[in-house]
Amino acid sequence: MNLSAVASKRLLALLGERFTVQRGVCAQHAKGFSHHAPSRPDAVVFPNTAEEVAEIVKTCVADKTPMVPFGAGTSVEGQVHAVYGGVCIDLSRMNKIVAVNPEDLTAIVDPGVKRVQLNQHLRDTGLFFPIDPGADATIGGMASTRASGTNAVRYGTMKDNILALEVVTPSGDIVKTARRAPKSSAGYDLTRLMIGSEGTLGVITQITLKLSGIPEEIKAATCSFPSVADAVTCASETVQLGVPIARIELLDPQTIKAVNAVSKTTLPERPILFLEFHGTKIQVEEQVGIVKEIAENNDCLAFESSTTPEDRALLWRARHDAALSIGSFATGTEQWWTDVCVPISRLAECIVATQEDIKHSGIFAPILGHVGDGNFHVGICAEKGCAEQVEAAESLHDRLVRRALDMEGTCTGEHGIGLGKQEYLKMELGSAVDIMRKIKASIDPHNLMNPGKIFTN
Amino acid sequence: MNLSAVASKRLLALLGERFTVQRGVCAQHAKGFSHHAPSRPDAVVFPNTAEEVAEIVKTCVADKTPMVPFGAGTSVEGQVHAVYGGVCIDLSRMNKIVAVNPEDLTAIVDPGVKRVQLNQHLRDTGLFFPIDPGADATIGGMASTRASGTNAVRYGTMKDNILALEVVTPSGDIVKTARRAPKSSAGYDLTRLMIGSEGTLGVITQITLKLSGIPEEIKAATCSFPSVADAVTCASETVQLGVPIARIELLDPQTIKAVNAVSKTTLPERPILFLEFHGTKIQVEEQVGIVKEIAENNDCLAFESSTTPEDRALLWRARHDAALSIGSFATGTEQWWTDVCVPISRLAECIVATQEDIKHSGIFAPILGHVGDGNFHVGICAEKGCAEQVEAAESLHDRLVRRALDMEGTCTGEHGIGLGKQEYLKMELGSAVDIMRKIKASIDPHNLMNPGKIFTN
Repeated sequence: MNLSAVASKRLLALLGERFTVQRGVCAQHAKGFSHHAPSRPDAVVFPNTAEEVAEIVKTCVADKTPMVPFGAGTSVEGQVHAVYGGVCIDLSRMNKIVAVNPEDLTAIVDPGVKRVQLNQHLRDTGLFFPIDPGADATIGGMASTRASGTNAVRYGTMKDNILALEVVTPSGDIVKTARRAPKSSAGYDLTRLMIGSEGTLGVITQITLKLSGIPEEIKAATCSFPSVADAVTCASETVQLGVPIARIELLDPQTIKAVNAVSKTTLPERPILFLEFHGTKIQVEEQVGIVKEIAENNDCLAFESSTTPEDRALLWRARHDAALSIGSFATGTEQWWTDVCVPISRLAECIVATQEDIKHSGIFAPILGHVGDGNFHVGICAEKGCAEQVEAAESLHDRLVRRALDMEGTCTGEHGIGLGKQEYLKMELGSAVDIMRKIKASIDPHNLMNPGKIFTN
Repeated sequence: MNLSAVASKRLLALLGERFTVQRGVCAQHAKGFSHHAPSRPDAVVFPNTAEEVAEIVKTCVADKTPMVPFGAGTSVEGQVHAVYGGVCIDLSRMNKIVAVNPEDLTAIVDPGVKRVQLNQHLRDTGLFFPIDPGADATIGGMASTRASGTNAVRYGTMKDNILALEVVTPSGDIVKTARRAPKSSAGYDLTRLMIGSEGTLGVITQITLKLSGIPEEIKAATCSFPSVADAVTCASETVQLGVPIARIELLDPQTIKAVNAVSKTTLPERPILFLEFHGTKIQVEEQVGIVKEIAENNDCLAFESSTTPEDRALLWRARHDAALSIGSFATGTEQWWTDVCVPISRLAECIVATQEDIKHSGIFAPILGHVGDGNFHVGICAEKGCAEQVEAAESLHDRLVRRALDMEGTCTGEHGIGLGKQEYLKMELGSAVDIMRKIKASIDPHNLMNPGKIFTN
């Protein structure tokens, strides 16, 4: 156990019951939605305020104890695993929506506020927070992994929708990275540096978000194609034409099979694009018209659209539950969700080559993705306990990432590096990783903030 | 002179005539468009390649000689002033457009490529690079100051339109910050860290840009108002309603007076909004209709729109030349362009208070700004050699920045910190500046990359 008796005593005095070393609680904080082996922290703390976080950080630094920030535990690359033990800082009790400024299209929230909670709170303002990674993650966690998801093709990723952060640094200072102005050229962009740093540079204790207006009209559509190449080409052409589509998601036939089996839907077992259009009535009609034409030029088999909230909810529930459906469908397997992202011009080629590779691998591995961003996920399902399948899965994953890198892409579009992609980060960015290490060492000289993530010092 | 004989000899051997210590050339590189006193470098080098930049950097670091990257010299806060002498790295000969990928809406350019040059090159592709700070700056310079300008309300700033950078670091490595994928969660966002770092962390040697489609329809409009408050409220309401307007610029009556006098236009000497709408024909009509209604609700006096390229060019030339017009108009004064940015809900209040302040200051100080972003400029014109006016100007400027900070704003929306705003940066961000210093020291331990800018170590 890393945590000294002195530090434990201090944390207990500070937090009372909100400091615990109970095995069960520690086990609950040992992993995210991840195939990586769990790693239990020595203790879990539940701070209520940034000031408490600062005290926790100071205590742990004095004790040379590692710290791991924890939101909803939905990250998929092992970001919350306490690989060096230490103290898990669970931010779920810091879940207040501090302020909403409808005139400025901004909100200030605690890190433990969840995406669905925020949008329910905003409903009456006519505004919403558009980033939707599927899981009901915390805003702090989404900031930490630079999350994006289904709406990113229109609304951008977390980096585009955060104006400012409050962060407790490893020196225990509570720092604001920016003010609430819509833009600024005041010094280094610490906001963007913290976004995606996976808890390795500090603990995010407050987030100032940009909000968007709920569109006057929302229309959803599905569109099936004879081949994945046709579907992806339709998506690429839509983006290339500058259609401000809100969502354009690919589900491959294996994903559809799992969705149909689990969600009791009757979607055709073909490559399907799930689409959503946002705008005024006029804009949406125009967008639907353009995309339908593009789809038809790419041999689409059926283009079905709907504006009723019920139909839309059904459709997007099926999409959002796809990963879970695959999990239930592929019983007896360990699922491993990975993601890559390539320039849109290479996407069809990349997905087709990946499909071929999957076919030959003997692994059940459905593809689904945010194809408007060049980003797709593969759900690699290897039979539990079968060494051969695990090896085949690992080798499939390795080829997938290398293929994306060969196509000027990235080893992760939105999941982050965590534990799983550190070698690929080096392949992708070479000596830039040395700069990241220098920054890390300058801010966290004792390597106590989520050590072992992104890179191993 | 900082530069040693040994280093001079090395640079001469490397660059031949592209290394110079000529007084005239050094004097040309002593300042930007700035009221700060010029500071001549000891030498100027004109590299042709990133490899040459790396050799220059290694030579200067070995010699402990400061380096100042230089683009078009259009920065306004003293970013290119060689305050500690050393070597000015003029990147104007690195001006190739390396690649354009229309399918991916990306281009790769050298740092010395200028904005107008790029858009002329792109014309036949149906694409353009939207960031327009007015001056024909280099793309490298625009990245370094996190520039934005008239189109930012729709297209974002430099931080939103750069996918990746190649940077020569102070250790002489040529580093790529990212690949060409539309998004990535791979490690720290070094791209955004470098954008806006004003040459203090390295020399940008290549930029991968996001491009936008040239809109099918572009319509410009002007709209005058009885008061600045009415004009700004119209702008705020337009943004709050989510109208994707491309440009919404305020010119106050003093600016109009100068523009009319110099550009021989006959605009009414009232607060005027210059507007531009981008989209399909249908979208533009819809946007114009909505904004006209908002303008009328805010007592606009005249709303005139035009789609002919000639009329638009005339209008935007007048807007872009406004700063120069004010310079010619206010003869015998030293102009000092400053900018602040506040949340849109505070903008009207901030500009009205600033107008009042200007009135009482005895200083000619026109206001113009990118009001859709909450950002505005004040052109402070103090009589040359008049100590009283200079003092009044400084005190007006001080109140302006403090007013913006009091309203949750920033001391600079797009000009940067440079030499002029270092104290305000501390007021704005407090101990976050210490983190910036740590990052600077970790990447540039000898403080040789553009020393004395953003903060003084």
